[in-house]
Amino acid sequence: MIVETQFACFNELPLDCGAVLSPVQVAYETYGELNETRSNAILIAHALSGDAHAAGISPVDGKPGWWDSMIGKGKAFDTDKYFIICSNVLGGCRGTTGPGSINPATGQPYAMSFPVITIPDMVRLQKMLIDRLGIERLLAVAGGSMGGMQTLEWAATYPESVACAIPIATTARHSAQQIAFNEVGRQAIMSDPDWNDGNYYDKKPPARGLAVARMIGHITYMSDESMRQKFGRRLRGKDKFGFDFSVDFEVESYLRYRGMQFVNRFDANSYLYITKAMDYFDLSDREGSLAGAFRKGNNTRFLVISFTSDWLYPSYQSQEIVQALRSLNRDVAYCELQSNYGHDAFLVDVGEQTEVVRGFLASTYKARN
Amino acid sequence: MIVETQFACFNELPLDCGAVLSPVQVAYETYGELNETRSNAILIAHALSGDAHAAGISPVDGKPGWWDSMIGKGKAFDTDKYFIICSNVLGGCRGTTGPGSINPATGQPYAMSFPVITIPDMVRLQKMLIDRLGIERLLAVAGGSMGGMQTLEWAATYPESVACAIPIATTARHSAQQIAFNEVGRQAIMSDPDWNDGNYYDKKPPARGLAVARMIGHITYMSDESMRQKFGRRLRGKDKFGFDFSVDFEVESYLRYRGMQFVNRFDANSYLYITKAMDYFDLSDREGSLAGAFRKGNNTRFLVISFTSDWLYPSYQSQEIVQALRSLNRDVAYCELQSNYGHDAFLVDVGEQTEVVRGFLASTYKARN
Repeated sequence: MIVETQFACFNELPLDCGAVLSPVQVAYETYGELNETRSNAILIAHALSGDAHAAGISPVDGKPGWWDSMIGKGKAFDTDKYFIICSNVLGGCRGTTGPGSINPATGQPYAMSFPVITIPDMVRLQKMLIDRLGIERLLAVAGGSMGGMQTLEWAATYPESVACAIPIATTARHSAQQIAFNEVGRQAIMSDPDWNDGNYYDKKPPARGLAVARMIGHITYMSDESMRQKFGRRLRGKDKFGFDFSVDFEVESYLRYRGMQFVNRFDANSYLYITKAMDYFDLSDREGSLAGAFRKGNNTRFLVISFTSDWLYPSYQSQEIVQALRSLNRDVAYCELQSNYGHDAFLVDVGEQTEVVRGFLASTYKARN
Repeated sequence: MIVETQFACFNELPLDCGAVLSPVQVAYETYGELNETRSNAILIAHALSGDAHAAGISPVDGKPGWWDSMIGKGKAFDTDKYFIICSNVLGGCRGTTGPGSINPATGQPYAMSFPVITIPDMVRLQKMLIDRLGIERLLAVAGGSMGGMQTLEWAATYPESVACAIPIATTARHSAQQIAFNEVGRQAIMSDPDWNDGNYYDKKPPARGLAVARMIGHITYMSDESMRQKFGRRLRGKDKFGFDFSVDFEVESYLRYRGMQFVNRFDANSYLYITKAMDYFDLSDREGSLAGAFRKGNNTRFLVISFTSDWLYPSYQSQEIVQALRSLNRDVAYCELQSNYGHDAFLVDVGEQTEVVRGFLASTYKARN
């Protein structure tokens, strides 16, 4: 299934910081067919390093989408039944307006003059896209990690537009530890002289800093156990330590490779803006409490999923969401799935996740049609 | 109690890599008095960023030692009863020969021509110091984190010289995750152009890279819970997000401060060499199994301590040590202490640790005298 990325343009997007972005482009892909009653549309929200290419094969590089294991014929998000939409987030670097886009006022890339954005800003742009596509009420919004934050934001701000929400491996607010990991990544980028206060678009990008940020990220996405299983203490192409500072262990080689690979497809300034948006996110700060944030609408059903070995977005953060919703007597199901894959589980360990999502979507769809 | 750092010099130190370091200087401090039978000496081994100044007040900067809460009159390592020794590790930058020392062959700092070192190399140098001080058998060797690795190495290699060993918050071998965190720190340093392949001793040191490495370290030393208690989502000197990339959260400001502070007292090349020594450490690889490594001597008693919230050196790693020793029918006590402070607990949450160490030392001392 070859899938072309599409683009939508909007005149302006008002932001939480007070600025108005104008114009704004959003990159998106769709899979499956919208039914006549427009009642089968599902929005998928991506994580920090994701993009609009969630499923199918890209005609550009021939690669499958980042959630191809979950989206497609007969899969959890079944394209025979549902119409799936995934868009690149605001501030991104894969087709949606971000710091690497040209500022029409100057003819130069925004770089660090790009306004600071928030998760609500990202969702506001998604809402404009959904309106443009003529969809009044989404069957579902779903996503893991930062995608889960957007999912929660949809349910809190546009409850009438979401029949069900599936936040996965996520939180209603970043903890000090989560902020800390993001901040170290940002410092790694901003410490790289090639970052040059963000002005590198006609020069060498801050590849070393971004690679280090990505390496930190990768460690937090895996579990101690999954790293042991994948690498252990295995040496890379040698029997004995080199007693030098070249690569000794396979895990070192993997991290360096993934770090450098990331540099080819991601913009360092986008990394700064998007991680900042994640750190700012705090639904409990909105209306005095987390429950307060969800008080507005009461027609949205929730399926909250977490993974046992996810130490970056631990289960207790999902349970906080569940408790807030329960205190409002909302329709909420919670599944803590057993997995050794850490935070990556929502991307790579999709067996049980598929079962629970499939059933939940089917019952929501049935109740609606 | 003002304590002067002392120095001992040795003609040569043979290393695991095959090189011989010549000459070698070691910086050390002592607290309390050696008794007539020389049976009350305790060696304290420090962690990655520690030094010989474990207790008392430094005449140089007026600062207390890094384990002053554990060493002194009436404390766990009671200077009224015991003679305590702490030396800066080989490869360090606080008085013991390391990459920043002058290579007598060239008249220039070794920098990256310094030979790669191991935990056994560090302990070999400590053994030479203990011999020089005329101590045949230590009452105890104790240390946390990398200090615990040295403690285990002492018990494995010089069992006749150690009456008891107290490895705290440590492991007999670095896991893939522990190697990964160290590797990211090394990459942060080596990515800094000021690192200049290690040749910066007459120039600007790689302060940004070292600060990032230290920031990563700090996150791993704390627990999710202790970060929440210490910082939560509190903002730094403002009521609302700045919507910019200056410091927003207190945890960001803390990490940046600790990162920059570290740069003033630590050498980046030492960070590379010492973390590599930690990654190489694997007692289970020595004689076919972890138990095999401890087979040599059977007169050493063990007190193994871990902390519930330490996710960098989790309790299961201490339990592996305990199980190996139990399989040899060795005298081993294991205490998993309750603490919210994460890996830092052995430095900052010393109440219960004091009680168990005090009792264990007293009974070992009594049995010996």
